[in-house]
Formats: sequence, C-alpha cells, structure tokens
Amino acid sequence: MNGAQALIRTLVAAGVDVCFANPGTSEMHFVAALDDVPEMRGVLTLFEGVATGAADGYARMAGRPAATLLHLGPGLGNGLANLHNARRGGAPVVNVVGDHARSHKRLDAPLESDIDALAGAVSAWVRRSLAPADVAADAAEAVAQAARGAVATLVLPADVSWEEGAEPADPVPVRPAPRVPEQVVADVAAALSSGEPAVLLLGGDVVACEEGLLAAGRVAAGTGARLMSETFPARMVRGAGLPDVAKVPYPPEMAMASLAGTAHLVLAGATAPVHFFGYPDVPGTPVPEGCTVHVLSAPGEDGVAAAQALATLAAPDAEPRLLEAARPELPTGDLDPRALAAVVGALLPEGAIVVDEALTSGVGLAELTSGAPRHDWLSLTGGAIGDGLPMSVGAAVACPDRPVIALQADGSAMYTVQALWTQAREQLDVTTIVCDNGSYAILEHELSRVGAQGDGERAGQLLHLGGPGLDFVALATGMGVPATRATTAEELADQVRAALAEPGPHLIDAVLPGRR
Amino acid sequence: MNGAQALIRTLVAAGVDVCFANPGTSEMHFVAALDDVPEMRGVLTLFEGVATGAADGYARMAGRPAATLLHLGPGLGNGLANLHNARRGGAPVVNVVGDHARSHKRLDAPLESDIDALAGAVSAWVRRSLAPADVAADAAEAVAQAARGAVATLVLPADVSWEEGAEPADPVPVRPAPRVPEQVVADVAAALSSGEPAVLLLGGDVVACEEGLLAAGRVAAGTGARLMSETFPARMVRGAGLPDVAKVPYPPEMAMASLAGTAHLVLAGATAPVHFFGYPDVPGTPVPEGCTVHVLSAPGEDGVAAAQALATLAAPDAEPRLLEAARPELPTGDLDPRALAAVVGALLPEGAIVVDEALTSGVGLAELTSGAPRHDWLSLTGGAIGDGLPMSVGAAVACPDRPVIALQADGSAMYTVQALWTQAREQLDVTTIVCDNGSYAILEHELSRVGAQGDGERAGQLLHLGGPGLDFVALATGMGVPATRATTAEELADQVRAALAEPGPHLIDAVLPGRR
Repeated sequence: MNGAQALIRTLVAAGVDVCFANPGTSEMHFVAALDDVPEMRGVLTLFEGVATGAADGYARMAGRPAATLLHLGPGLGNGLANLHNARRGGAPVVNVVGDHARSHKRLDAPLESDIDALAGAVSAWVRRSLAPADVAADAAEAVAQAARGAVATLVLPADVSWEEGAEPADPVPVRPAPRVPEQVVADVAAALSSGEPAVLLLGGDVVACEEGLLAAGRVAAGTGARLMSETFPARMVRGAGLPDVAKVPYPPEMAMASLAGTAHLVLAGATAPVHFFGYPDVPGTPVPEGCTVHVLSAPGEDGVAAAQALATLAAPDAEPRLLEAARPELPTGDLDPRALAAVVGALLPEGAIVVDEALTSGVGLAELTSGAPRHDWLSLTGGAIGDGLPMSVGAAVACPDRPVIALQADGSAMYTVQALWTQAREQLDVTTIVCDNGSYAILEHELSRVGAQGDGERAGQLLHLGGPGLDFVALATGMGVPATRATTAEELADQVRAALAEPGPHLIDAVLPGRR
Repeated sequence: MNGAQALIRTLVAAGVDVCFANPGTSEMHFVAALDDVPEMRGVLTLFEGVATGAADGYARMAGRPAATLLHLGPGLGNGLANLHNARRGGAPVVNVVGDHARSHKRLDAPLESDIDALAGAVSAWVRRSLAPADVAADAAEAVAQAARGAVATLVLPADVSWEEGAEPADPVPVRPAPRVPEQVVADVAAALSSGEPAVLLLGGDVVACEEGLLAAGRVAAGTGARLMSETFPARMVRGAGLPDVAKVPYPPEMAMASLAGTAHLVLAGATAPVHFFGYPDVPGTPVPEGCTVHVLSAPGEDGVAAAQALATLAAPDAEPRLLEAARPELPTGDLDPRALAAVVGALLPEGAIVVDEALTSGVGLAELTSGAPRHDWLSLTGGAIGDGLPMSVGAAVACPDRPVIALQADGSAMYTVQALWTQAREQLDVTTIVCDNGSYAILEHELSRVGAQGDGERAGQLLHLGGPGLDFVALATGMGVPATRATTAEELADQVRAALAEPGPHLIDAVLPGRR
C-alpha cells in the first residue's frame, strides 16, 4: 500500500471521511487513492478558500474534523483566511498540504515556498511526513490534535504519497475536555452571590448546545446575573424554549454600553471581550474599569459541565426564563435589512442552520429570529470575510437533512463566490440570501468612525461596489445555482418559501437600499 | 500631516502612483488620504489575490512597482499566491499590509495573526513601521528594495496611519543592477568557442527587451550556440524582427529532449532549469549529465550588458538570424487549441500584451505567434494559478494605450475571477479568451504521468469541471464585462476582431473539445 492509501484509510478509521479538495500535481496519488477507499468522500472546490471554509463549517456542525487537500504553499496561502476563522472559532480541521517530492525540495522549483512557516501561522500543530512508514501515524496524530479544536496541518511530500511500504494506523485516543476544578466553580458562585451587577458571558461549547444554555439560564434566574454571549460564536443553538442571550454588540460604543456598570464578568467558554479594532481615543475593550473578570471555563475546557455545576451550586432551585415561540409578521413593502430579518424570522424552518455573514445588513436578525423554532447560528469567528458561502457548503455536507440558510453580505460574498459551484455540484440544500447594498457598507461606517477626514469621492470609490453593479443572479446561474432577485419584502418572502420548498441550492439577490 | 498622508506622498515622490487596494477598517486613514494626494491612483479589487496579481502584471510592464493595500493577516493570506508569482518572476511590488493599532496588538483581537511570518514567506524585505515619524522613510526604503526586483512588505499599524507628526521622505536612490565582471564574460566566450554543443538559456532582463535578444542572437549566429529561454519568462518581447527563441518545454521528457547532448549551458538572466514537479524515476532537472553550466548573468545582474559584451567578444561580426513577419491563415471549422492559437496569431495587434495562463490549451501558441508584429508575452512565473486575469488588470493599467489579450484556462480563471469586475470598473482594454475545456486538463495529464493507478470515476470527478459546467458568459456579464461564446474557429475570429475594435474589456468563452 502506498502512503496516500494508508493516509486515507487512517483518516477514515479515525472518523474523518470528508475531504474538501483543490488538488494539484503533487496530490495526484491522494486523488487516485480516493478510488481505493470509497468511504472517503472527496468534495471538489474551485478555490482553496472554499475548501478551508467548508472544513470550518463542517467541523462546527459535525463536531469532528473534515480533511482539506491543498496544493503546496500557494494553495495553502489561498486557504489561510478561512483557516484563520477556523482557528479563532476552535473548529477542528485536518489540513493536508501537498508538497514536492523530498528529492525535489532542494532544487527550488518554481512552486517551492516555505509551507511550514505559512502553516504555523494558523495551525496549533504542524507536521511534515518524512517517510511512507510514518504518514499513517502522522495522520492519526493530526486527527487527535485537531479534535482538541484546532487546525492540525499535515505536510505531505508527493513521494511519501506514492512510495509503497505504508500501513494504516489506529486512531489516537482523544483526551476529553478538561474538567474545571470545583474551587473555580465555588469562587464564581461566591462572586455571583455578592449581589453586585454581574454578567455571565457565554461562548464556545456553552452556547453550542441546549444543556449549556439551560444551565446558564438557571444561573441567571437564581443569581440575577445577566446572560450575554461573545459577539461571534462559532455555533449557537437558538430559538423558542431556550434562554434569551444577547450578543456583545460589535460597535465599540454599544459594546461598552452593554457592559456598563458590570462588577463581575464571568467567562463561560468565552474569552474576555475586546473590540474588533482599535480606534483613536477609545479603550481597547468594553470591560468597564474596576470590573472583576472571572474565568469559569476557558475555551477547550468542559464549559457545559462547569455551567451545570455552577447552576447546582449557585441556583439550585431556579428555573430558567425561556423564550416563547414567536415569529414576526411577514413584512410588506420596501425591502430593507429589518424587513429581510423579519422574512427570515417568519419563515425559518425548524432545524435550520443559519450561516451569518450579513455584516451591516444583519440589523434586527437576532431579535426577529429569537423565538423561531430551534436552529443553529454560525458566525464569522475570525473577522476574515469570505467564510459564509464556504461554511454553507460544509454545514450542508455535515447535515444533509437540515436546511442551510446563508445570509451573505455582497462585498464579502465575492471573496469566495466560487462556493456556489460546489453547492450546485453536490446539490446541497442551501438557500443563499445576498444582502445586496452595493457597497462595503461596513467600511463606509468605519471611514467616519476612525475619524478619517476627507471621505471625498476618491476614497468613496474604494468602498462602493457600483460602476458596474454586481449581478448576483447572473453569477449564481453561471455556476449552476438557480437564482432570483427580490426588490420588495413580498418578493423576498415568496422566493424564500419557494427555495425552502425545493431541494438543492438557491440564491436570492435581496436588493437593499444603497443598491436601489 | 498624518502617517498615511506622508506615506502616500512618499510613494508618489518615489514613482509609485498606483495602488491596487482591498482595504478594511485598519486601512481607512490610508483610504481617506487618497483624497489628499490625487497623484496616487487607487484601484479597487474585490479580492486580495486580484490586487497582488495586478501589482505583478503592472510591475512587469511598467518596470516599476505599484503598491498594494491589504487588510491584516487574512488579507495578506489571500494575496500570497500572486505575491509568490511576483517573487518568482522578480517583479517589484510595494506590498502594504495594514495592521491593528499598536495599542490593540496585545489584546489578541479576532483578526490578530502573525503578519510578519506570512510576509516573510514571499518578501525579500519586511518592515513594520513603528511610529508616524518613521513611516515615510520606511516607505522610501520599501520602494528602493522593491526596485531590485522583489516584494517589499511594509506593515502599517492603524495608529501609525492616523497619528500626526509625519513628513514625506525623499526617494532612496536605487542601485543599478550589478555589472557582470569581464572575466566571467571571457570564460563564457571561451566555452562557446570550444565547438561543443552549447545552449544559451535566456531569461529575466535579457528576454524582456529587444537589446538583450538581439545580442543573444548575435552570439548564437557567431558561435553556433542554440537560443532557448526559461519555460515561463516574466516578460518576453516577441515577434517579427527578433531572434527565434524556443522555451524549455514544461513536460519533463520534452524538456530533457530539448537539452539532450548539450555540453555547455550558459545562463543569461535565467536560473538553471528544473522540472516543475518531481516524478517517480525521473531526474529532477533536464540538464544532461556531464553538461557544464555557466552563469553569464544571474537574475538581478545586468544581463543585457553581459549579453552585449559576450556578443562583442565571441561574435564580433555576426548578424543575428531574425524572424520574418508571418501570420498563420485564419482557421476554419472546429475550435481546438491549435485553431485558437492560429486565431491569436492571425489577429494579434502590434504592441499587444499577451497574458498567458492558457496552460494545456496553449499548445501551438508560441509557434503560431512567433512572426506576429512586436508584442510582449507574460507567463505564469511561479506556477500558482490565478495570476492571469489579475495580471491583465495590472498590465492594462500600466499600458493604457496597448491592447491586452488574456489567454486564460478555465479552471485557473475561477481562482481570481473577480478580476473581471475591476476590468469593467476601470474600463481596461483587455480581451479575455477563456480556454474552456471543462476540466483541470493539466491534472488529467498529471494523474497518468505520476503513474497513479486507479484513475477511476471518483478520482476523475476531482479533475472535471462539469456537473454543472461553468458559464463564463454569465459570470463575465454578472461583473459588467460584455461576453460572447465561440464554438467554431470562425466565430472566435469574428469575436476577437470585434473585441479588439472596441475599447474596454471583453470576454470570449472559447468552447474547446472536452467541453463540447
């Protein structure tokens, strides 16, 4: 058996049976080996950023890693932005990067580059397989490393793939998430019993499942602490029957206002909040001066068990306040972000997966979907735009029986628009709604926010997507995704209903003010 | 004056007056400063790989660097592949990467990453500006470093941009390319006078101008050495009235055959050839055993002067053999790669810039265009696909009075297809011909070449672009580029003629066997 065959068999045995691939010459034996190991599903993408973003979305929904297959340093470069997002969200990814044959490395061929340096910037673990006899064990270790919520990169020289003498390896046992010590829980319980204003800031594993949210809801009900979540959780379960959890807002002023007066900030699966960017004369974090920050559980620890232990200790008899089932009325008339949010809230199907890269067009979404049937919400964890459409691919591959709704800003849609083709090829059940305002609207806000002077015509041209406007219906149909355009709230509702009623991908270009 | 204003004024004073930009929040002061310095032209791209590839194409044609403007580590990541190509081709680029404000770095905000590590992998020079008082001098140094034929990366913290107290800096004098010592020229002349079979392998500056090629032609005529060029020159001037220079072929067997029997391989601006990839049981380089490799000039040295000195010494009275003006007949009937090449050869306008990322569909192109009117040919220097469409943007910005013809393979077109939008917005005179064979054809060759077994259905699916087929006419029109489809040689000729007759961008989807 050659190295590629042993590698793929090892991945499959360890539960990694999907590979989002952009192969090149150095990965041809890996590709050939797919015919020998039918348990591995290869999914072709037309750009590496789609492959890595799909792996991110897959991991968030499957709870286990997919593999990628990238072509040398430039292919890894193309995939870095979404590996950054995966890293920031703690998504497990087995990132396989092909390299030149070992004998070819020293020749400095045109595609030679420092793969290891690039990989190191986004990976918790990097290993270069040095021989066919090693590659299976390396792959098994990569899966175990990824399972801790990390990007694990395996660099695979072509000749390690093609040489014989390899054998599959057994899976490496994955250590369970560390338990939080009882004393930590007791200290937090004591702080919450002080009667001083407290916020329980949820993130990571605590918001990704019902158990974590219900435990947090009990703590809030029993101690008076407010529930909030990190601004961009990797995965948040939401909807009627769960506690209401407000996200820390993105704009610095709103974030500071949301935490003003807090004496105790308890982190449960979240890290201490910082603003996305620094601004002149604005503090870097919304945590008020004098507020004590307590870490109930850090990312990677068992935050759900910690939240349950805290609830037992601090709020033994409390019942969480839960959201009633409620949907907004279907809006009528002009289409604007709030009407778009109302359509989503009114029509969101039970069990939907919402991929949210709506950015500025997402106003009202959280509020108008909070009482919808149970659903999962995936956010842009690392701020590297262009993860939305790829994540929708990965989420749909992970959960073929659940509808995926991708809420996608127009400017960032163009970063990895090639994802639509993979939606079509794999006939994934994704409804993409493009929030088409014809600009990098977030930057128009930011240009004034940073206090920049002279936002005149030339600067404005760098933030405006017109001249020519993008025709997302043409782009989608050009890649095989049926598409329609909605200019009123009624049209949007009709088109969303129709898209959800029919399997396979659909795109709806929601024309918002700014574009009209 | 703030740091951004001083930076832009310094760049302009040093001759860098175009900036291919994908800004984000941390670059808003740079964007605002564009209104203060109208000499700097900002060109918006929808993806960083377009910005860096445009800078590559611009540099090759302008002979001086453009600036880029990228957003933090993920933006740099998106631009890495085409910076790799620029690095491999020796194209000067001033690569400006925005970063968090200095005070914000330590907070590990979501977009924080190791920019310096990423930049180091593609840059000959990396500097992080530490204060507004430094940024202008840093920028001047970046231009000088880039001018040596390198990617120079300037990392620009947001607060260094926005703080006051900066002043523009004078340009840093650029050292001329080092002259090759006389003894080196004499040694090469002696080797060529041996009467043993010799090849003069041209690249870099020697093929980028008429003077270099004519000097090499004299050497060949006077000594009997054969003229060849590197496989993928960054820029090659071609056409009637110049010597005939065959490229070292890409496939290893053909490359080895082209150099078989060579006793002396003289490198003039080129590096010693190596195969693009390693293969089982194939040597890594086409240089025959026993062949002596002589370096007349290394990349970065003054190869043109060296070639002229060699001609004076080794072939004082020789006249170079020059290509006659000749065009192929316009082909008729079915469209295949050779017919496509004949259409290009028959219609190529005087002064055209050909951007060649045709890959496997480029068969016959070199032969059928060799006697066309004088033109420049830009190749994929680093093997990272997705440079063609972006380079066409940069070349057209650099040379607004010259027609650009982009010969673009379908699979690699999708890597940076967003470049079409910038073609449309800037109304660039680019005629893109998509070589639409419906597959990663080069990988279909490679799958068999590497000796991979079992190229069955599952492997084949990872190399095939069908299911659904890509509709490049829809994609182009969706980004504002008028587009047509050609299925016969006559249709292609008609459409190329029409596109060349009308200013602004056009795309022609040339449907080749494989797609039909």
